[in-house]
Amino acid sequence: MKKIFAIIKDKKRLHSILFEGNDPLSRPVDIFIMVCIGLCVLMASLESVVKVDDYSLQAIFHQELSGIGILKTCIIVLEYVLSILFTIEYILRVYCSPVKKDYVLSFFGIIDLLATLPQLLSIFFPPLRYLSIMRTFRLIRIFRVLKLFAFINEGYLLLESIRKSINKILVYFFFVVVLVCILGTLMFIVEGQIPGTEFTSIPKSIYWAIVTLTTVGYGDITPTTGLGQFLSGIVMILGYTIIAVPTGIVSASMIDTTKKKGQNGRCPRCNEKTDLNANYCKHCGERL
Amino acid sequence: MKKIFAIIKDKKRLHSILFEGNDPLSRPVDIFIMVCIGLCVLMASLESVVKVDDYSLQAIFHQELSGIGILKTCIIVLEYVLSILFTIEYILRVYCSPVKKDYVLSFFGIIDLLATLPQLLSIFFPPLRYLSIMRTFRLIRIFRVLKLFAFINEGYLLLESIRKSINKILVYFFFVVVLVCILGTLMFIVEGQIPGTEFTSIPKSIYWAIVTLTTVGYGDITPTTGLGQFLSGIVMILGYTIIAVPTGIVSASMIDTTKKKGQNGRCPRCNEKTDLNANYCKHCGERL
Amino acid sequence: MKKIFAIIKDKKRLHSILFEGNDPLSRPVDIFIMVCIGLCVLMASLESVVKVDDYSLQAIFHQELSGIGILKTCIIVLEYVLSILFTIEYILRVYCSPVKKDYVLSFFGIIDLLATLPQLLSIFFPPLRYLSIMRTFRLIRIFRVLKLFAFINEGYLLLESIRKSINKILVYFFFVVVLVCILGTLMFIVEGQIPGTEFTSIPKSIYWAIVTLTTVGYGDITPTTGLGQFLSGIVMILGYTIIAVPTGIVSASMIDTTKKKGQNGRCPRCNEKTDLNANYCKHCGERL
Amino acid sequence: MKKIFAIIKDKKRLHSILFEGNDPLSRPVDIFIMVCIGLCVLMASLESVVKVDDYSLQAIFHQELSGIGILKTCIIVLEYVLSILFTIEYILRVYCSPVKKDYVLSFFGIIDLLATLPQLLSIFFPPLRYLSIMRTFRLIRIFRVLKLFAFINEGYLLLESIRKSINKILVYFFFVVVLVCILGTLMFIVEGQIPGTEFTSIPKSIYWAIVTLTTVGYGDITPTTGLGQFLSGIVMILGYTIIAVPTGIVSASMIDTTKKKGQNGRCPRCNEKTDLNANYCKHCGERL
Repeated sequence: MKKIFAIIKDKKRLHSILFEGNDPLSRPVDIFIMVCIGLCVLMASLESVVKVDDYSLQAIFHQELSGIGILKTCIIVLEYVLSILFTIEYILRVYCSPVKKDYVLSFFGIIDLLATLPQLLSIFFPPLRYLSIMRTFRLIRIFRVLKLFAFINEGYLLLESIRKSINKILVYFFFVVVLVCILGTLMFIVEGQIPGTEFTSIPKSIYWAIVTLTTVGYGDITPTTGLGQFLSGIVMILGYTIIAVPTGIVSASMIDTTKKKGQNGRCPRCNEKTDLNANYCKHCGERL
Repeated sequence: MKKIFAIIKDKKRLHSILFEGNDPLSRPVDIFIMVCIGLCVLMASLESVVKVDDYSLQAIFHQELSGIGILKTCIIVLEYVLSILFTIEYILRVYCSPVKKDYVLSFFGIIDLLATLPQLLSIFFPPLRYLSIMRTFRLIRIFRVLKLFAFINEGYLLLESIRKSINKILVYFFFVVVLVCILGTLMFIVEGQIPGTEFTSIPKSIYWAIVTLTTVGYGDITPTTGLGQFLSGIVMILGYTIIAVPTGIVSASMIDTTKKKGQNGRCPRCNEKTDLNANYCKHCGERL
Repeated sequence: MKKIFAIIKDKKRLHSILFEGNDPLSRPVDIFIMVCIGLCVLMASLESVVKVDDYSLQAIFHQELSGIGILKTCIIVLEYVLSILFTIEYILRVYCSPVKKDYVLSFFGIIDLLATLPQLLSIFFPPLRYLSIMRTFRLIRIFRVLKLFAFINEGYLLLESIRKSINKILVYFFFVVVLVCILGTLMFIVEGQIPGTEFTSIPKSIYWAIVTLTTVGYGDITPTTGLGQFLSGIVMILGYTIIAVPTGIVSASMIDTTKKKGQNGRCPRCNEKTDLNANYCKHCGERL
Repeated sequence: MKKIFAIIKDKKRLHSILFEGNDPLSRPVDIFIMVCIGLCVLMASLESVVKVDDYSLQAIFHQELSGIGILKTCIIVLEYVLSILFTIEYILRVYCSPVKKDYVLSFFGIIDLLATLPQLLSIFFPPLRYLSIMRTFRLIRIFRVLKLFAFINEGYLLLESIRKSINKILVYFFFVVVLVCILGTLMFIVEGQIPGTEFTSIPKSIYWAIVTLTTVGYGDITPTTGLGQFLSGIVMILGYTIIAVPTGIVSASMIDTTKKKGQNGRCPRCNEKTDLNANYCKHCGERL
């Protein structure tokens, strides 16, 4: 306990634990936070299955003594515990930031706030528990899991490859959006006049075009006329063919990255470890 | 206003603004046109949702004063404004072209005409507003958005990669069409005789083959016999495997292009900018 | 007419026209045959739509004089004309082959026979027209279109790339078949006992596994239990990930082929045409 | 018979036949085992179709003399024969292993046991035949088929390519799982409140997200609101784009492997066979 207060007093150390991850304590703390987030996701899933509808503190003591009643009690208790933990985490993060505004207004600062606020407000003002839609915002807490990626070194090469080709992918993405609009409107012209058609409006037809071009194919909207089926056949083969483009982009970029760094960050000639941004191996001079 | 007329008088400058894009004014003009097209697409989508059925000028003043009525009025007014703008643009484009026939008969010349004509005709001859099917042609205006691609430099490398491999893709495309015909007829032989089958004719079976081979899988037509399910299983694994071919083509081409130009048009050795069609870096002599 | 007989008499020339394609006449002959095959495919499609049920010669004269009746007449007449043409072609091919057995027992020899025989038999023995299932074999004639690929030079590089990696693709194909069997049986264990399930037997569950793993996803068989949905979620992500493998195989092979021959069969250094199987450019000595 | 006992006595030889595959006898033995496994899979499939419900020895003699009755008899007899064969195989494998514990506790040792045990127990204790769910474990026997891959040399290169990139694929796999959780919960927020929605809980919404992101698209759960369709449109294009990532990973790795070993384990320069782990060709010194 004393130790914890000592750490909390030492703002610099606290900062390195919570933000930088180069302290011996930061690993267990990070893992603990992640387990909490995992529990949180599990709770949200369970809640939506067993349909918990009363989150007040009293509800904990008034559940039926059936299996589901006990599960509901566990969920509510855990909700409170997790809410308090996340609130403490948020306060500590703000507290140890050298420039508080920087953290509070950063991407993860806003997400951390959004993940804790609705729950807290519903504690102090019970009627707020009716803001059931607001409460669902808490689910965004799941985004925190994304922080996990900072842990995995392998992810770095992946991200680098994607970042390199992000421009081309965006151009491609934009092209797909335009194509989908054109195909959707074309399909609306062809099938929209048929009585009983599912192509009732252009946005819905665009939705169909996306479903088809990406080869998802729900089947909730399908062409019924011969011309419509012919056109959608073309859309499908088109989608099938242009699926190759982003793959080509990422492959080209990934091969480039792989070749530069070697498959495992090792020189392909002497097999010694190379720096990640080196152009020549520092051991044998091989061009990477 | 005066300035605008000065520009209109200077045919050469007008041409460079509207067609070439190397004038300081061409950028804002292009962006303005694109915003108009974007609005146009949005209008077409909204129209199909709220079902506007009267496009006469009087209709503007006779809408109900409900939310949808006001929306309808806005749509109709914007339709007229956009039609006039596009007409002016079309006239200016024809006017400033040195060889008028070249533009009018070019791909975008015809699309520009098709995008403006039906709307215009329905203004001057009110009964023409019943040509509702003709009016939908106006939706082709959406094709103009394709011009956007000329703006984005990144798109150039993409297009070059695709153009290089277009021959192989066409061969592949043709192969898929033939394959789909064969598989469709085979499936018609297998499932066509079953009472209550959805494989009622060969074209419909070919449509099914496309839906299946491209892994879209709507589920509106599915095999019911054991043999039919066995055959379609083979079709699926086949489609799953040959999806690799266009990807391989584009990847190979893209890697080739990337290697030649460097990832960002830079020499991989000295990292200086290289010319797009250079075979050797002009700074260090490295073969690109 | 005389000219035709002269050619027919010259067995060697006839052989080079029909089989080798290096005679000035072989191109038009091939195109003519292909047009006939195309017509044949079109006929088969139309037949299945308008449901022609009487193929006897008399039927030609007893159709109703409606649009569909005339169409039926055209179909029947064309059927006979095409049958005769294909029979003549088959006879000529057998006639001009130096070793007749070689052609008759070759892959295309058998297909050519199967494509002409059922039709012929139904002419001489009218009751044979009831062998409607046999008649559908005639649709295999569509396979002839595959011969088209020999015409297109671009296809050569494609085929070479695929042939190089055919071994790996077969291993992969076999792996997918095994995987699909395992996943299908697992799913049958999980979902097979539920009343009203669509997973009624293992072969049907394997069919489901193929539909899911290849990301086709008809939706005619879907899991309903939580465990079944969890398992199929894993199958989907698995399918999504292993789709990468054949793509990788073909890409690697295609890049290899492309690099060796240059993108257009030209040396990447001096840009001169290279031989297709050369390892070094014959103009500048560059290693290909 | 004598010969068989001689082999069984020679533990070393038996081990090399059953485990190592470098004995002249190991090939036919392996093929025999594989045929047995194939039969076993076929039996399991047939059983689930004809619904065999009594596996006792007496049942063999009490089947009706109809086609299905005879089929059932064959299935039951074959079941017993195969069970005995697999038991003998298991005993021999344990017997000839130098360190018995190593085999029994190895992956294939456990699978071999699980594949034989349930069947055996149901022979000695007839009431155990009601453990129908346990019996299905026997289907895991299918995993033995995976051993097939040891035969095919081509598979080695494939596995090497995949093993090299397994880390990256796992990171990607984890990323997809997180993404799917986020998208599922988002969709539950958007569509979960609509009456009659199919998005009844978060796990079900996550299932939907997997079905959509992997482009399977069953269509058993589909969005009905405009916002839901918009969001799922984004999910689809996202899934369509990120499908490129694992492909890129595997392609890069496969190209790397291919380049190192040559397409067929041959030096790209002198075309001589190279060792699989060589970095330089042992014939001409070319770097591989």
